[in-house]
Amino acid sequence: MAELLSIILAAGEGTRMKSALPKVLHPVGGLPIIGHVTRAAREAGSSKIALVTGPRHAAIREAVSALDSQVAHFEQAVARGTGHAAAQARGLFEDHQGYIAVVYGDHPLLRGVNFRAVLDRLDAGLDVAILGFEPKDPTGYGRFITDGEQLLAIREHKDASEAERAIGLCNACILAFRAEVFRDLIDRIDTNNAQGEYYLTDLVGLANAAGKKVGYGVAPENDVMGVNDRSQLARAEKLFQAVRREDFMKAGVTLRDPDSVWFSFDTEIGRDVTIFPNVVFGPGVTIADNVEIRAFCDIEDAVIGEGASIGPFARIRGGAELGPDVHLGNFVEVKKSRIGAGTKAGHLSYLGDAEIGSKTNIGAGTITCNYDGVNKDKTIIGDNVFIGSNASLVAPVTIGDGAYTASGSVITEDVPADALALGRARQQNKPGYAPRLKERALAKKAAKGK
Amino acid sequence: MAELLSIILAAGEGTRMKSALPKVLHPVGGLPIIGHVTRAAREAGSSKIALVTGPRHAAIREAVSALDSQVAHFEQAVARGTGHAAAQARGLFEDHQGYIAVVYGDHPLLRGVNFRAVLDRLDAGLDVAILGFEPKDPTGYGRFITDGEQLLAIREHKDASEAERAIGLCNACILAFRAEVFRDLIDRIDTNNAQGEYYLTDLVGLANAAGKKVGYGVAPENDVMGVNDRSQLARAEKLFQAVRREDFMKAGVTLRDPDSVWFSFDTEIGRDVTIFPNVVFGPGVTIADNVEIRAFCDIEDAVIGEGASIGPFARIRGGAELGPDVHLGNFVEVKKSRIGAGTKAGHLSYLGDAEIGSKTNIGAGTITCNYDGVNKDKTIIGDNVFIGSNASLVAPVTIGDGAYTASGSVITEDVPADALALGRARQQNKPGYAPRLKERALAKKAAKGK
Amino acid sequence: MAELLSIILAAGEGTRMKSALPKVLHPVGGLPIIGHVTRAAREAGSSKIALVTGPRHAAIREAVSALDSQVAHFEQAVARGTGHAAAQARGLFEDHQGYIAVVYGDHPLLRGVNFRAVLDRLDAGLDVAILGFEPKDPTGYGRFITDGEQLLAIREHKDASEAERAIGLCNACILAFRAEVFRDLIDRIDTNNAQGEYYLTDLVGLANAAGKKVGYGVAPENDVMGVNDRSQLARAEKLFQAVRREDFMKAGVTLRDPDSVWFSFDTEIGRDVTIFPNVVFGPGVTIADNVEIRAFCDIEDAVIGEGASIGPFARIRGGAELGPDVHLGNFVEVKKSRIGAGTKAGHLSYLGDAEIGSKTNIGAGTITCNYDGVNKDKTIIGDNVFIGSNASLVAPVTIGDGAYTASGSVITEDVPADALALGRARQQNKPGYAPRLKERALAKKAAKGK
Repeated sequence: MAELLSIILAAGEGTRMKSALPKVLHPVGGLPIIGHVTRAAREAGSSKIALVTGPRHAAIREAVSALDSQVAHFEQAVARGTGHAAAQARGLFEDHQGYIAVVYGDHPLLRGVNFRAVLDRLDAGLDVAILGFEPKDPTGYGRFITDGEQLLAIREHKDASEAERAIGLCNACILAFRAEVFRDLIDRIDTNNAQGEYYLTDLVGLANAAGKKVGYGVAPENDVMGVNDRSQLARAEKLFQAVRREDFMKAGVTLRDPDSVWFSFDTEIGRDVTIFPNVVFGPGVTIADNVEIRAFCDIEDAVIGEGASIGPFARIRGGAELGPDVHLGNFVEVKKSRIGAGTKAGHLSYLGDAEIGSKTNIGAGTITCNYDGVNKDKTIIGDNVFIGSNASLVAPVTIGDGAYTASGSVITEDVPADALALGRARQQNKPGYAPRLKERALAKKAAKGK
Repeated sequence: MAELLSIILAAGEGTRMKSALPKVLHPVGGLPIIGHVTRAAREAGSSKIALVTGPRHAAIREAVSALDSQVAHFEQAVARGTGHAAAQARGLFEDHQGYIAVVYGDHPLLRGVNFRAVLDRLDAGLDVAILGFEPKDPTGYGRFITDGEQLLAIREHKDASEAERAIGLCNACILAFRAEVFRDLIDRIDTNNAQGEYYLTDLVGLANAAGKKVGYGVAPENDVMGVNDRSQLARAEKLFQAVRREDFMKAGVTLRDPDSVWFSFDTEIGRDVTIFPNVVFGPGVTIADNVEIRAFCDIEDAVIGEGASIGPFARIRGGAELGPDVHLGNFVEVKKSRIGAGTKAGHLSYLGDAEIGSKTNIGAGTITCNYDGVNKDKTIIGDNVFIGSNASLVAPVTIGDGAYTASGSVITEDVPADALALGRARQQNKPGYAPRLKERALAKKAAKGK
Repeated sequence: MAELLSIILAAGEGTRMKSALPKVLHPVGGLPIIGHVTRAAREAGSSKIALVTGPRHAAIREAVSALDSQVAHFEQAVARGTGHAAAQARGLFEDHQGYIAVVYGDHPLLRGVNFRAVLDRLDAGLDVAILGFEPKDPTGYGRFITDGEQLLAIREHKDASEAERAIGLCNACILAFRAEVFRDLIDRIDTNNAQGEYYLTDLVGLANAAGKKVGYGVAPENDVMGVNDRSQLARAEKLFQAVRREDFMKAGVTLRDPDSVWFSFDTEIGRDVTIFPNVVFGPGVTIADNVEIRAFCDIEDAVIGEGASIGPFARIRGGAELGPDVHLGNFVEVKKSRIGAGTKAGHLSYLGDAEIGSKTNIGAGTITCNYDGVNKDKTIIGDNVFIGSNASLVAPVTIGDGAYTASGSVITEDVPADALALGRARQQNKPGYAPRLKERALAKKAAKGK
């Protein structure tokens, strides 16, 4: 296959988003929209990617560089239309041999296969191939005016005759060219239109005028949906999730209620995993086989080992690593901690910056006190340890293998292996005092005058 | 515009709800159904509202008075039909000049614009105008029998001929009259029907007989759905939420999964707020710009400042006020507290009846002990305070600016500014004791014979 | 009615589930698929049930025995088709007088009424009656070839002519026979087909050849959906939930958002119960009248008394019994405990293996320390007790009526009635120390070189 350069256009303002965040940085499945487009371009085999952004779009350039450091950045200093935007990438396309695909950056569901639909037409001998689709409601889309196989023009909806509006095949979001044809035509676009802008779609007419073979490929409607406002963003998310859910179920994951489980673009899940309703996966999660995740869990940036049992009401994050057969129960948070095989933390605990061995029992209400206002320190707990309920483990602190800490203790010093640690006051009972306390409380209430 | 009196009918028993709570008090979007109707009547410009309820409906009268103290109450002592119910409001309509709208009280999605659809017809010269709609399935609804613009009759479904049943336009829930026409006709309704009741819809025929100009306005089907059972109540809630979600997205709020966010009728949300899946807003919530609300939050009666970050798994209520850039993390409850700018409470805490300054850090597991069995007392915490993890703050108590409380402390006395407070026992380690404890526990288990 | 023997076939491998768990053990509504089928068979009046499973299906046999100890088990040692599978139950059918129904075990939505649809046809004089249905999309299903009332054959989709494929009535999952007809024909099935297997559906042709009266009953499509992969499992769950939700709403339960409440097959709920969005019921839950369950609750194996108020964010399990007017608030877990009338536990508590009296107040952050690493011990709390916040109650321990425990106490010994118990250290303030701590922390950070 010919070498592919993809020029991604993301210079638009996206005002209908009503957001300070540039449109293409809004996430779908936990990845910015533009990240989906660069991934699709790579998946299609792009060896070079040019990204054209606007002058206020430093945030886009930074985000994309973090995702794909090989993308070349170009700025469109003034908004003069899509043709003008694509032309800004001249530094990359002027010497390019092979194919050039120009693609709109606000299409989060785009996949490599959508690029292939037009690139295959170039392989088959066309000079220009435009990606089309057949929307359920074509109102507003540019129609493909064809003569047999030849694509003659893309007619904007507002300029279309009634007969043309009856055409179902519409312009999507990728235009592919032989590099020399693109170079030859890109500077011929003019601004003879109502908006006074350079329209990329004029290349179709120009290519026809130059006697080039112009055709099209077709994409499913969902793949090429663009995002212009937050309703469309929500719809893109819904479509993205539907695909991921179905893929996981096909692969042997049980989703009790698929519609209430949200995945990220990079979630990985093993076989015979059962996920109850209402689970949210942020980016960076890998789950091994035979794991059960109960309702109301929020998991991101975490690795969960085989046979683990999580939730309900668990939160895991910050690079947590859970070994095989770990159990985390309700109202338990694990942050940036490693937990060994078979260890259990069943209730109301915060485990942060901890390293915990295997077969250890973390009592209900255990808190790692990992922060002193400035530093985050580590709590290290060995194997077969028993941490009594309602413990405060004041980091940095190490608790040896087989040790036992009494319920309600504040542990500020290291505990040797097999030692018992206590850090709590002795109980005193004051017989008959409770009614007096109550009387005092009632008197106080009366004194408040209420 | 002519002065408007609205007579709202809510005297029905609503037996299909199978509820001890009167039907119109069941909430939609956090507001009783009847509250939606009174609000719509006010929105349409009603200067007077009469509410007709039944003898066992004191709860309705109280609830409505709390929402709109200007509503006048009338009782229908015996159930003798809708015409009889409307006639109970005579005290208010007998001297009224202008328009009278009679409206059914069990229509939670009614809006001012639906009143306008019939009032505009009166403005245009009609004497009587009835609100109609075109249901997808008209079975069961009264059909509009018309002659050109003139509405001749409303034919009940069971009385309709096959030809009449083919009519798509049906009776909705508002009947509007010139006041003098209404007064003239209301006492002419008789009980010559199978049920022996006074039917309000008979006014259409009576008006025609009196030579009046009778017409209709039209409402969208969703606006005029009535609620008779809990399935319809759930459907009304769904429709209500769909409208609110779409409105918020249009205004610049990101809803990752709109279908899993529930708003109240009065929720206010700023721009560039992101709401993750599964968030429930009770009544009385105002959220400023640039707030992030993560999954699984339950928020009611709260003000949240700009740039705050909430959840996952946070609960806020009871008149809480969160300043700018406050962070509340997982398993944190804030009740009736004020929290200053930049203060963080990240994990497993209960903050009740507290006043907390700015840039203060509330450690994991912090509990304000605000209740002595009788009184609720205040916890006052200054700026730049560090509350160590697993603290018990026994109210009333004041902790000064810049103070520091050690992890696991029970704080019962005021802490001066910049002081360190400790309230915990010293740790003791007993080397080699842990295996003995285990042996003892095993012996106990054996003794239990199990 | 004639005595009924049902032969349930569950010997298939279910490879499309991609699961180590046999297909019919995957749950729908908290009950294994096969459990729904045995329940439907009993509901239809089966006095005998035969279950035919494969050689690796010990888990199915155990699960079914636990659900219905009267089911007789038969093994199909080698997979030779459905006809061969049914023949394995010979031990039960060889002497049976009356009717025999053969039913596929992977149909979780099957109900007694679906059996009745074919059994009624036998009552009406037929020899054989097959359950059919009219799928929206019949592709892939066997078509019913009929001559008037007589069912001549079931034509597999792949063998059907174009005309036959136009037939809408398809084969579902129950075949019913007069016992003597079944016995006479079951051994005549041969393997003259592409797969070389014994097909149960061949009985239709054999019965016709023997001059028997063969007909059919009809079931709604949803009732007879089979589960072959996890997408279909999710769909069955969705359909199951839709029916339960509607039934509860009809009976007087408010579901704010029905789509986000998940019931089990055995959930029981009283009248005027309100359930907020996002509530999950595991098996074994009974809820009395006038209970409010707020958002984000996870409840299984629990009894909840009249007027109780639960959640948001509550978890109840393990045979918990909550008396009337109990209040459990957010981030509260109750496991295997009894809680008396009017007792409140509002915040961040774990109550396990506890017996708590009435009108007792459990402070925020209370933890029952019920586990010593080996044994689970009891915490017994009387009536009108006040447990101060952040208490650790170290079981076994008893707290008498009217007692009061101070906030932040570790209670290790019994507390007499009306006594005040304290188990916490005295607070010390160290004036001016906080800035020194901060300096020290900053120095530590600097020393870390970061």
